[in-house]
Amino acid sequence: MTKVTAQMSVSLDGYYAGPRHDGQGGWMDSAEAAGFFRVTRWLIDAMAWRERIGFAGGERDTNSDIIAETFEAAGAYVMGRRMFEGGEVPWGDEPPFRAPVFVVTHRPRQKLARRGGTSFTFVTDGVADAIEQARAVANGKNVAIAGGGDLVRQVLEEGLLDELELHVVPVVLGGGMRLLEPDLGLDAKEAIELTPTRVVPTPQVTHTRYTVTGHAALVLDDRGSGGGPSRLAAS
Amino acid sequence: MTKVTAQMSVSLDGYYAGPRHDGQGGWMDSAEAAGFFRVTRWLIDAMAWRERIGFAGGERDTNSDIIAETFEAAGAYVMGRRMFEGGEVPWGDEPPFRAPVFVVTHRPRQKLARRGGTSFTFVTDGVADAIEQARAVANGKNVAIAGGGDLVRQVLEEGLLDELELHVVPVVLGGGMRLLEPDLGLDAKEAIELTPTRVVPTPQVTHTRYTVTGHAALVLDDRGSGGGPSRLAAS
Repeated sequence: MTKVTAQMSVSLDGYYAGPRHDGQGGWMDSAEAAGFFRVTRWLIDAMAWRERIGFAGGERDTNSDIIAETFEAAGAYVMGRRMFEGGEVPWGDEPPFRAPVFVVTHRPRQKLARRGGTSFTFVTDGVADAIEQARAVANGKNVAIAGGGDLVRQVLEEGLLDELELHVVPVVLGGGMRLLEPDLGLDAKEAIELTPTRVVPTPQVTHTRYTVTGHAALVLDDRGSGGGPSRLAAS
Repeated sequence: MTKVTAQMSVSLDGYYAGPRHDGQGGWMDSAEAAGFFRVTRWLIDAMAWRERIGFAGGERDTNSDIIAETFEAAGAYVMGRRMFEGGEVPWGDEPPFRAPVFVVTHRPRQKLARRGGTSFTFVTDGVADAIEQARAVANGKNVAIAGGGDLVRQVLEEGLLDELELHVVPVVLGGGMRLLEPDLGLDAKEAIELTPTRVVPTPQVTHTRYTVTGHAALVLDDRGSGGGPSRLAAS
């Protein structure tokens, strides 16, 4: 059955890139890029990733297997406009998706067909509509939210995400573009509960996969501690 | 050899408590407490924790083993003032530490001796001095930074932390008191690198332990990708 999934590489402090590029100078020289390349280094080294983008070499290891599995599981993608615009030229004639991609945008545009099975359809009716269009062509495989972070957050906030996989990289960036920004529409005593379903540790990155259980009230639950002593729990 | 360690329970989005209590109404009714009790629920349920604070029952499981091991490894503690003040009364005559505790504060105060091996020494010369005093009495065991988050962050920022263990709880709080706030004194292209040394998954919490490798420059490192295609890495 089709699940709506998202995968993001993040630093230990939750950033998927450095501070957003302000347009001064080239993107490649920006702090955004420096942070981005650090958290995705494991991916760029993985053979399964390099094959998709037409690079030779790479490591055939657990990380590569996870990338291969993630590509295989996706029957269609949903993508944000900024990510598409950043990728359109460099992805070239044969983008790595090899499946239909639905781009959430405000600007109507004709569908693009690419070699290798990738197409880009521009959806102006919002992310829920893009997910439904993707689901319809996913052939029972997953609909993968390809990013960026804003879109993943929006899908989580709207209760449309079934599975979240964070590839947690052992680095503290100290600032940047954060995946789980505090703008998820949650009340002060409300949370989104998840269930861990798989943890795969490697030296370069820890792959942690969760099923999204859903919104839940944070009921006071001190497990009979009387409140005070459990403050030590912060230790 | 003595290591300086810190352990914190955090939500998937990096919070160790809900939004800081503003003093209106009781702490137990606050959103800070609601978040705090959610991320420490696994701890309150663990037998090894309950034994330390004099409660019956609890689960004897992997989580409990990890708590027991953490207590056993610590020869002395360093603690922030706010945490001490929150705990002083409820911890009572026999606090759970059973070791010397050094409280970082601006207010001089006479040392307190408690039953079971816990003492509280008030250090007004800063956290580095508190760590040195703790190291001197730790008998080769670890100096554990007991919290709160501000103190852990400060120790990390000052390069005094050897090991960080995050107990990552599968919940998104959407806001609150965040451990790795972006005030770590890092330049835009600078990071703190860590090395994962142990990952223990359980249904309630994922225990992830890191050795702090140290500050490092974020050199541009696109692994020959040409920059553009690797933007897909955000997927």
